[in-house]
Amino acid sequence: MSERVERLREAVEEPFLILDPVNVRYLVGFESSNSGLLVERSRVLLFTDFRYAAAARTVDGVDFVETSRSLVADLAERLTGRVAFEADSVTYSGYETLAAGGLELLPTRGVVERLRAIKEDRELETIRQASALTSEAFERFSRERFLGRTERELAWRLDSIFHDLGGSSSFDTIVAAGANGSTPHAHSGEGRIEAGQTIVVDAGCALDGYCSDCTRTFATTPLPERLREAYAVCLAAQEEALGAIRPGISGIDADAVARAAITRAGFGDAFGHGLGHGVGMAIHEQPRLSTESEDVLSPGNVVTVEPGIYLEGLGGIRIEDLVIVTQDGAEVLTSFTKDLVTVD
Amino acid sequence: MSERVERLREAVEEPFLILDPVNVRYLVGFESSNSGLLVERSRVLLFTDFRYAAAARTVDGVDFVETSRSLVADLAERLTGRVAFEADSVTYSGYETLAAGGLELLPTRGVVERLRAIKEDRELETIRQASALTSEAFERFSRERFLGRTERELAWRLDSIFHDLGGSSSFDTIVAAGANGSTPHAHSGEGRIEAGQTIVVDAGCALDGYCSDCTRTFATTPLPERLREAYAVCLAAQEEALGAIRPGISGIDADAVARAAITRAGFGDAFGHGLGHGVGMAIHEQPRLSTESEDVLSPGNVVTVEPGIYLEGLGGIRIEDLVIVTQDGAEVLTSFTKDLVTVD
Repeated sequence: MSERVERLREAVEEPFLILDPVNVRYLVGFESSNSGLLVERSRVLLFTDFRYAAAARTVDGVDFVETSRSLVADLAERLTGRVAFEADSVTYSGYETLAAGGLELLPTRGVVERLRAIKEDRELETIRQASALTSEAFERFSRERFLGRTERELAWRLDSIFHDLGGSSSFDTIVAAGANGSTPHAHSGEGRIEAGQTIVVDAGCALDGYCSDCTRTFATTPLPERLREAYAVCLAAQEEALGAIRPGISGIDADAVARAAITRAGFGDAFGHGLGHGVGMAIHEQPRLSTESEDVLSPGNVVTVEPGIYLEGLGGIRIEDLVIVTQDGAEVLTSFTKDLVTVD
Repeated sequence: MSERVERLREAVEEPFLILDPVNVRYLVGFESSNSGLLVERSRVLLFTDFRYAAAARTVDGVDFVETSRSLVADLAERLTGRVAFEADSVTYSGYETLAAGGLELLPTRGVVERLRAIKEDRELETIRQASALTSEAFERFSRERFLGRTERELAWRLDSIFHDLGGSSSFDTIVAAGANGSTPHAHSGEGRIEAGQTIVVDAGCALDGYCSDCTRTFATTPLPERLREAYAVCLAAQEEALGAIRPGISGIDADAVARAAITRAGFGDAFGHGLGHGVGMAIHEQPRLSTESEDVLSPGNVVTVEPGIYLEGLGGIRIEDLVIVTQDGAEVLTSFTKDLVTVD
């Protein structure tokens, strides 16, 4: 763990107060919904309340300090001087409380998140395993009966497969068929799968604290020609974007590759979200691949590549791989076929 | 929905910017991870991005405005003048972005949360249903075989029962046996249930957007006398606290009733958390029952009553009911027995 703390010390001179629970877990391996870390030059203080005290005492490389449950108010009384803090995690209330305690507060943005975006080898290995499990789950899931079952039933079935394989869902599994699939962020509902629909299935598993993420779009026959065409366009755009993933490309440029391909085919208005996002301890993290991204890809990034085409009232298509950015390109982790799979 | 908006207008004079997604859902019934609401005197503006636009157009009583995905930055450009905001939800970064747009920002705390804490009749009815489902799930779960199965297997089994009954887990189900149960916030792990243990089972289901919450502690024989004694103390304290729940009692005083009972019996150091918390759209909301609470109970509150005794290395006990605060007392929603149930 201390290597991560060392990298953090290189990034920020001042004592740095970390209050984001995922960042605390990343830096010292301690998991709690109510914890804080003060990274100073010569020591690291770990703060949490009674409920997590026993676990906190077992953490290596930190000095544990028990606080009340009002952790931020407690820290406002304890800490003094100049302290850097995470402006994207701390609420305005939290800021006011700390400031009222007399601290000189220096806002920072994305410091630990930028460290997390470059995965270490053992993190990559865990994400590979989570992705292999997800690919196997999609394989088994594709042999299920779809027709006549509800989206909710099928989503539960996929969750059960994750469980059987030793993982658990890393986010609410989406199974969205027909018109319900024509919005990018559909929920699984009580609608039953009918003939002639696309079924967007977006799911991933969490394994040893890391996430995977995969989307495939299945079809029931007879699929309307317009959806068949959109599938082919989406797949070609996805493959083209995958081919563009390499160190040095910006999130905007990667997104533009898929967007241009979809726009050329006349579906430009129907791709209403970004191309992808980083995945790691959180299901959405840095870097981002979108028209609004400020990121540039580096080796060790793990990102999704997931263009979509959403035809209102008709159906949706999204095809998503999870990839590692390597020294010269991308290693695709999600191996389940991207050919259009017809289900019964 | 408009009644809720009217109550909000009574509470806050200025145009009020709501960015907490649960609060947006409460006020206008719109669900999205990226949305905002500006409640003005004569109109309500709903902001969200392309991905949720189709759903946003169907919301009654609001004027929909499509924004970019950088919603807060977008609002900073659109809005002017004095605007109240939620200081407990907006990050310091979000505050800075809005302030840089020239807005005069007025921090507020807990305004919508205080409205949410007093449930309407139809909300109470939904929570009653979610609780009835949870009680039935515990009933079925208590007939499972425990010995030799892992905590994780058993937690999944309970989740499956929720699913079969038409609900879904409202938070990660906790099954914590033996020494693992001796911390208040244990996770379900790979440990197998053995003879002579207590097994803390903390779970609830989500139904139509509302949560329930219930904890029961099961036992395998032969249970050590110390744990049997602690169970009796915890149950007596829980019943005593239940008897004290009524309008006008403070969260501190309700907590003190259970704490005094546990302390009298010599287990005071082992009750390391608050007595309870509000439940509704969120699993943890206002009011709080604890030594640090600032709340006073009112009719229509829905709260948990859940003392615990945690004996390090030996085992834990927690007994939790969900109750409605009525005009003159409490209506208990979780009906599964609180007698010590021995499982095989």
